Formats: sequence, C-alpha cells, structure tokens
Amino acid sequence: MYRSHSCGQLRASHINTEVTLAGWVQKSRDKGFMIWVDLRDRYGITQLIFDEDRTPATMMEKAKSLGREFVIQVTGTVIERESKNAKMPTGDVEVLVSDLKILNDAKLPPFTIEDETDGGEDIRMKYRYLDIRRNPVKDSLIFRHKVTMEVRKYLSDQEFIEVETPYLIKSTPEGARDFVVPSRMNEGQFYALPQSPQTFKQLLMVGGMDKYFQIVKCFRDEDLRADRQPEFTQIDCEMAFVEQEDILNIFEGLTLHLLKEINGVEVDKFPRMLFDDAMRLYGNDKPDIRFGMEFGELNAVTQHKDFGIFNNSELVVGIAVPGGNSYTRKQIDNLIKWVKRPQVGALGMVYCRVNEDGTFKSSVDKFYDQEDLAKWAEVTGAKAGDLICILSGETNKVRTQLSALRMHLAEELGLRKPNEFAPLWVIDFPLLELDEETGHYHAMHHPFTSPKPGQLELLDSKPGEVKANAYDLVLNGNEIGGGSIRIHDKQIQATMLKHLGFSDEEAKAQFGFLMDAFEYGAPPHGGLAFGLDRLVAILGGQETIRDFIAFPKNNSGRDVMIDAPAFIDDEQLKELNLKLDIQE
Amino acid sequence: MYRSHSCGQLRASHINTEVTLAGWVQKSRDKGFMIWVDLRDRYGITQLIFDEDRTPATMMEKAKSLGREFVIQVTGTVIERESKNAKMPTGDVEVLVSDLKILNDAKLPPFTIEDETDGGEDIRMKYRYLDIRRNPVKDSLIFRHKVTMEVRKYLSDQEFIEVETPYLIKSTPEGARDFVVPSRMNEGQFYALPQSPQTFKQLLMVGGMDKYFQIVKCFRDEDLRADRQPEFTQIDCEMAFVEQEDILNIFEGLTLHLLKEINGVEVDKFPRMLFDDAMRLYGNDKPDIRFGMEFGELNAVTQHKDFGIFNNSELVVGIAVPGGNSYTRKQIDNLIKWVKRPQVGALGMVYCRVNEDGTFKSSVDKFYDQEDLAKWAEVTGAKAGDLICILSGETNKVRTQLSALRMHLAEELGLRKPNEFAPLWVIDFPLLELDEETGHYHAMHHPFTSPKPGQLELLDSKPGEVKANAYDLVLNGNEIGGGSIRIHDKQIQATMLKHLGFSDEEAKAQFGFLMDAFEYGAPPHGGLAFGLDRLVAILGGQETIRDFIAFPKNNSGRDVMIDAPAFIDDEQLKELNLKLDIQE
Repeated sequence: MYRSHSCGQLRASHINTEVTLAGWVQKSRDKGFMIWVDLRDRYGITQLIFDEDRTPATMMEKAKSLGREFVIQVTGTVIERESKNAKMPTGDVEVLVSDLKILNDAKLPPFTIEDETDGGEDIRMKYRYLDIRRNPVKDSLIFRHKVTMEVRKYLSDQEFIEVETPYLIKSTPEGARDFVVPSRMNEGQFYALPQSPQTFKQLLMVGGMDKYFQIVKCFRDEDLRADRQPEFTQIDCEMAFVEQEDILNIFEGLTLHLLKEINGVEVDKFPRMLFDDAMRLYGNDKPDIRFGMEFGELNAVTQHKDFGIFNNSELVVGIAVPGGNSYTRKQIDNLIKWVKRPQVGALGMVYCRVNEDGTFKSSVDKFYDQEDLAKWAEVTGAKAGDLICILSGETNKVRTQLSALRMHLAEELGLRKPNEFAPLWVIDFPLLELDEETGHYHAMHHPFTSPKPGQLELLDSKPGEVKANAYDLVLNGNEIGGGSIRIHDKQIQATMLKHLGFSDEEAKAQFGFLMDAFEYGAPPHGGLAFGLDRLVAILGGQETIRDFIAFPKNNSGRDVMIDAPAFIDDEQLKELNLKLDIQE
Repeated sequence: MYRSHSCGQLRASHINTEVTLAGWVQKSRDKGFMIWVDLRDRYGITQLIFDEDRTPATMMEKAKSLGREFVIQVTGTVIERESKNAKMPTGDVEVLVSDLKILNDAKLPPFTIEDETDGGEDIRMKYRYLDIRRNPVKDSLIFRHKVTMEVRKYLSDQEFIEVETPYLIKSTPEGARDFVVPSRMNEGQFYALPQSPQTFKQLLMVGGMDKYFQIVKCFRDEDLRADRQPEFTQIDCEMAFVEQEDILNIFEGLTLHLLKEINGVEVDKFPRMLFDDAMRLYGNDKPDIRFGMEFGELNAVTQHKDFGIFNNSELVVGIAVPGGNSYTRKQIDNLIKWVKRPQVGALGMVYCRVNEDGTFKSSVDKFYDQEDLAKWAEVTGAKAGDLICILSGETNKVRTQLSALRMHLAEELGLRKPNEFAPLWVIDFPLLELDEETGHYHAMHHPFTSPKPGQLELLDSKPGEVKANAYDLVLNGNEIGGGSIRIHDKQIQATMLKHLGFSDEEAKAQFGFLMDAFEYGAPPHGGLAFGLDRLVAILGGQETIRDFIAFPKNNSGRDVMIDAPAFIDDEQLKELNLKLDIQE
C-alpha cells in the first residue's frame, strides 16, 4: 500500500490520524526553519509541513531537495493548520511529515503544471502526459468519462444493447475516404476501417436486436481541420419498429438526461424546425437559438426603388442587432470589412440605424425613405436602439454570409453563453444534394436514408425537392447528432442506388449483402449517431474538442507527441515483412 | 408508434386491453377455421389468434398467407387463452387480431430460427443476421452487454476513469505482428493498429490519471485459431501507486462482483499459486482447479529398479483418475492411443489400477512390487478404485502431455462443470522466456514488466530464473486476465531493453518517448488486462467465444458473412486512389 488516503481526502475530522500519502510535488516554500510542500494527486492537494523543531535534520535536507513534479511518498500526522485555506477542500489541515521517500525524481517540466500554464499549445501537446496533469485537461477527461457512463446507463435502462461491430471491414462508400489495412493472412487483400458501423447496425436490426447502441471509434482518411480528427468517437444507435417521432423522443430523452445529470440544467421540450425554415431564418442547418437575430427577407420591401444592387439580387436579407445603434461609424466599418473578408465573401453591407426616437438612418437614405425603412424594421424585428445589417446576392451564398455575420455579432455581444443550452431538432432534410461540380445528385445523409412517405415518385422529376426522413440534433449552433429512418425494402433500396448513379452490378457488389438481408424479414428501422467528441466539448462549455481527447492528433494527422506513438518507418515496415504489391 | 407492447410483455392482467404488436412470424398453425400465429421479437413470443367467427374473411386470407419470418404488425384484444402454456411468460393470454399489416415479407430462411436449429455452422455464419435471431446467439450478445455494463459500473465506482486511447498509432513490438495502415495525408508513412494500449496507459499514469480503464478493441495480424480473432476486445486497466497486492485485490473484487451479479455465484477469496507450482502440480500455467488430479512426481519412487524408461527420464509424473479402476482394458488402451496422438506426443503411458481391496495391478508389474506401487499411490493421492496414469520424459514436454491428459479425463468424467467457477491467481511468472530456436531470451509478458525486487542483478548470471512482478487471473483452466507491475525508472527500462537485445539506438527509437516520460516524475504503476471475449464466454458457460461476438471472422480472417463487409478488391482500391509504393 503506497497510501492510506488520497491528496484530496483529509479534513479536520482526520486530525491526529497517522496517514500515508503519495503524489507529485506541486510546489514548496522553504523558510529555512520550516518547509511547506503542496502534494498533488488526481484527487486534490494536501499541504505537508516539515519544521526544524519536529523534523530530523536529514529529513529537512531531503525535503529541501524536492523539486517540482518529484514523486514522493510521505507518512505523518494530520494536524490543524495555523492559517486555514477556505478555498481548498483540505485547507483546514496539513500533514506533519515523519517519513519521506522519493519514489522518482523529475526533470524541471517544460511548462508549469498549473490551471493557467506558461506553456504554449505545441509544447503542451508534445508533452501531453504533463499537460494531462493540469486540472483543465484532467477534468475534461474525467468529464468525458462521466458523460459516457451516463449515456450507457440511460440507453441500457431503455433496453438498448451495446453490441460491438467489427473494425476490420469491407469498404463501403460513405462520403469520406476509407483507411485501408492490408491483410497478411490474405495476400493482396485489404480491410477497410469503418467510417461508421452503419451497415452492421442495420444488419443487427434485421437480426432482431431491436435496440442497439455502441460507443465506437470511426475513421476517415481526409484532410484534417482543427475540430476534425482522423479517428473520432460516435454514440451510434439504431432501433427497429420505429418512426421518426419515436427516435426523436428517445434521443431527446437522452439529451435531457445528460443536461440534467451532467450540467444540472433543466431544458424544455426541444423545438423542431424544418430544414427549409432553418435555412430561411438562420441561413444554416444548425442554428444557434440561444439568441434571436432571425433573418428577415426584404426583397418585397426593397424592390421598385432605384437601388440596383437590391433590385438585382435573388435575396435581400437582414438581421436586427440588439442595441446595435450604439455602434460607432468605425465599428460599423469594421463589420463591413469583416463581411468582405474572403472567408465570408460578401460584396458589401447595407445598414440602418434605428434611433431611440423611432427614426431611421440608413446607408442608403438616397433610395429609401423613413416609411420604407420602417418596413425593414418590421420585417427584421428591429426595435429602437437596434442596428439592421443587410446583405444581398445569390440566395445560398448570402444566407451563408449572413449566418456567419450573425454568429460573429453574437460572439461579440456575449450572446453565446457556454452554460446556456438551447437544443433543437432540424427535420425534413433534403434527400439529395446537388454536386455543383459534377451536376450529379448524391445522398445528403447516406444511401440508406428513406425518403418521406409518398416522395419516392418525385425522385425522377424533382430530385432536389425530395425530403428525407432525416433529422439532426443541434445544440448551441453545433450538430451533435444526426440520423434517419432507413430504407428496409430491397426494391426501394435498389431504386435509390440507381438514382445515386450506381449500376445494378455496382449496387450488387457494394450493397448486395444488405439488400439480400432485406429479403429475409427486415423490420422498419432507423437511428441516430452522436459525435461524442463534440457533444462532450459542448456540454463542457468548450468550443474545441482537443482537451477532451487524451491523445489527439495534430493537423497533419500525427500524434501530438511528436516523438511518441505516431508513425512507423520504412525500416519497421521491412521488419514487419509486409508485402504490398499494389501500385498505382 | 409501431407497437404498444413488446411480444414478451402481455400477462393475464392485460386481458381485454387493446394492444398493437410488431415482430416476426415464428410459426403458424392453420386449422382452416382458426389460425394461430406465434409472433416473436427480442423480448418474447405472443400467440395471435384469427378465427372464422370473429375475423373478416379477407383478413383470414391474409393470415393464411403469412410465412415464417414475415414481419407483421397487428392490433387486437388480449384474451384469455383456452389452453394455457405455463412454459411461456405470455402463455396465459393470446391476442385476437382485429387488424393485420404485413410490414415486410421474407424468403424462407435457409435454416430454422429455433434454439436447436437445423443449420450447420457455415450457413449460420453466412446468414449471421438470421443466426442472431436465435435465442442462444441473441442471449449471448445481451449477456456480453450485461457483463460490460457491470465491469464499467464496478470500475467507475472504484474511481477508475475510462479514457480512450488512439487506434492509429506507431508500431511498438509486443510479440505479435501489427496491422499497418497507410496514411494518405502523409504519403509513404503508415500507422499501426494497437495490439494493446500498453504504452498509452503507462503515459496516462505518468499523467496522473491514477486509475484508468478502457474496454477497447486490439489487433494482431497473425494466424487465426478457432478462439483467436484478428480483432479482439480487452478490459484494459492501469493504476498508479500500487503494488502487486493492491492490483490483485481490486481485480479479484471485480471478478467476484461479476460472478455474483452475472452468475449469482459467491466465491471465496481466490487462491494464489506460484507459476513454478502450477507447472509442477498441473503442468500448465492456467490450471483448471475445479477438480483435483494433481501431478505426483514419481522419480524418487521409480528409480533403482530395472525399468529403463523411467530411469532414463528427466521426469516421471502421474495423476490419480478418480474411479478409474472401473475402466476396461479397452478404455485404457484408448487412453494410451490418445496420449500417443501427434497432437499430444507421448511415447506411451504406464498405468496402475488401485483395486477396491487396496492391492495394485500395474502395466509394469514385472519391475515394481506392491510396496513400490503403494508409494506411487501415496505420491499421486490415489485411493481404492482409482487409476494412476504415468508419463515420463523431458520435464517440459511431459508436463504438457500429462496436463492434456488430465484435462481430457476431466472432460470425460464430467468434472469441468460449466456452472462451477474456480478462479485463481498464478503469480511470480518468469521475467524472460528462452526462445529455443534462436537461443535468445525475450520478455514473457512484455518489455515493460518489472522484475521482482532484488532480482535485477540476476539478469546477467541467471536470466531464466529471474521472476517478474507478473500475474495471471485464471478461471476454469483459461487465462482470463494478465498483468504486471511496470518499470517506472528510465535506467531500469534501459537495462531491460538491453537484455532483450535492443541496441541503445533501437531502444531510443522504439521506446524513447516512454523513457523520456519516465524522467518527468513517473509514479510506480501496474495493471491488468482481461480478454473480454473469453471472459464473457466462460461466465456464460461456453468454451468458444464465437456466439458472444456479433460478427466474428472465420479462420482465414474473413468476415463470417462471405458476401458482406469483408475485403475490398483491387478495383475499389484503385478507386480509393491509394498510393502504395512499398515493395519487398
């Protein structure tokens, strides 16, 4: 036994107890005749005391030698602290050390192991094992554990069964590129790593498992972005004999459970928004509804004047910035600059101040009178003291631009509060998406998604208008989950694949196993997958996922610890005696 | 809502309720004027009834058309059953159907969906989604879920944190061959899939996580055996500030918890056996101690007679077969044949009957008198009515042979009861193992295992005798877990790697990241990993793991569903536009 108690455990009730503790030296203060050491472990910090009167000289010497992050074991007596520290749970006591053992020494860490560290991102990532000792990272990993435990508890209580599906599978196209894994047992053949267990969970439904879930790693060999890892974790779920309504209810229940158990927050029933409405009102299929600033479409009230820009625009659309009339001219110019940056791409911005007295002052007063501008305020919901920002252009583009502006303003105005949670369902997604480069339609969700009842007939005539039985769960402007009711009929699946451009032969080769399974009694089924990394980060009030992953990869897909488990080299590959005889 | 109740839910208390059920047609009996259908889902079976008097003619027709495994939805009234079936939980009632909807039809399944099916292994594996509908497989998957839920609950209650470690890592040699994964983001570089998260969990200990666990897939690209999958699941655990004793206590606690919660069995404190004793008494480092038949070493009581075979053997060793004196001569001849099979490899077997009157009759009476044989009985613990079986030869070989015979006899005698559980710890494993082909020693566990205190010095002089701080958890003759106290000192790790034949350069390249981490305050630590697939199978009273894996691979590493997710082909590989320019 290295310890009788953890470093977070001792209280006034332990006074006069003999204890043994082990941990890391957080810091020490040496007053010559007296030395205090803060001893840290995962559970907390306890103050140790060595003093000339009560500590043998050799031990005083040893105590003086302790450096930061040394690993030590001490035995001693819990005593009352002279100057108590109300901020520390153990702040009433300290341990008068009678025995000190250095278990391991430590080089000076390359950055301070404190909540606010002096180490930059790169050095902390390189020494991730030291970064994990810091509370913000350690607490994030513990937080993730708590979330997954609650997810499993909730789903298990609802009769979901966690079933492991294979990692070494056959490639099935799901949008991103697969990682491939050569098999030595079967020379010249390759496994793929799953982008999701989609087809396996559908087979489990055909197999009668009824309610399945799995917290599972998925993989995609694609360009990385800050918040996109080549390996990521999903809470993957599927249910049989369900309609969309059943699925929304179950996973709304799960999300409510997490918000309550993890965040202590009670949220009302989630609003549901049509995809088309989300695009119209927020320019975005994952709107942040913690705040308003809904889009107002202004074509009807801007036309028939001489302002050509608006007259020639497919869409003129604005938002009311609450209190925005207080912006200086310079601030507004900065906003205009912001929307004109290439990342946003607007050509300009029209604005209109709503004065406290109810009058208006716009950047296009030449073309529009007070009566016109009053209509703008009405459409955008602007009140006295607000600022109306208006963009115009091609519908899809201008919506995206105004959505970016809306988020930017909300961020600036402090409206995106990390501890406020505003979930919603976005439903009735389009089934197909036009690839503007190729002119082909492809599945917006995946090829197994069912069209809404009665819409199959539109596939030929109006493919872009067919709605899917697909839904996303959105939280604070992030898509945290998405799913659909699946096709469970072989013929419909075949029709769908044909429309997605698969020949009969290709469809059979790629998806034959699934369509065959549909012939042996496939139940209606559907499901949903949460992106765990992002869900955890948002519940934890963070925008980035990195702190919630123990060993993330950097933007080139390398392990964060550059000298650590990362890539194997040619030499090792030769040693592995691997035959890779495929060449392009 | 496809259903108001499941097919396992209805009881007498539901009589006169209107219900909606959905599921699969298990079977139907058509008496012309009356049709009974057994409707099945994951939760049970409910009998439906259609009868001429109360069912419209069109619905009677539809009911007649139902084939096995059709997916249907019915609405009807729960009524009392005329002939109750006490064996079914729903056997008091049936549902008089008022509405019948066929949700999906089904081709005749290639084997019966019954507990005892007419389908052979291959066909069931090919149509695994149909096999999963059968209770034995379905229940095994649900059983696995229950075990993992209990594991997580127990460990979480003990303050273990589940942390996900990466799947795309750098190769580290751990005995088996790695699967490699080419990275397109970093051309010419390859990830490896982990054989275990060993080094990552050690880094988490350096990072102060204190108690870590993870239920995690691991991979090895090796020849497959019936019970060895290329991907397998571990319950991987690690703790800081622990000695061997602490680890044995924690995981003994976990195993006791599982036996109690899952099997309803209370087991005493686990015995602990030295590796050397296990080899001496059972010829095996994972002895099944549900029964006795311990080895008795007979060299001392067989020498100095004229029986040359024994005199020239390094080891003469026997077991007492309880009640074995009842074996006929033919049965004994069969045993001799059995041990001489190439799979076992003994040259022969000497036996000795212990008659009911206490006299002896051996196959070597020419050489040994009654007094000699009495000593054999004493050493092997044979009683009146037993049979002593004796093998001789080179120590390691003969122990393995007699161990095989012991297990074979126990199986025949019905001593390996699936519902009896006899766990034990085997401790003090050798640190190194001699590779007889190369003459080199390699790590028996892995290169991070710590030698027992004070034994480091023996590494040079007597490498084969150095004992490790390593232990296995054995259950019913199977290793279900194994682990060790790790090295946490850079110098000792370097010494160990040197002894394992790594040059300084190789050691730095392969394990530098870990040894560097040891310099920044590494705590003493150790851990254990359970093989989940086998643990679950043994707790479930099965010898093979396959039923407990939803989609196992066959012996060539292919997915069981031959036409299903298995391998990608050249064509797909080309489409993936993968550059593999490594050639042997």
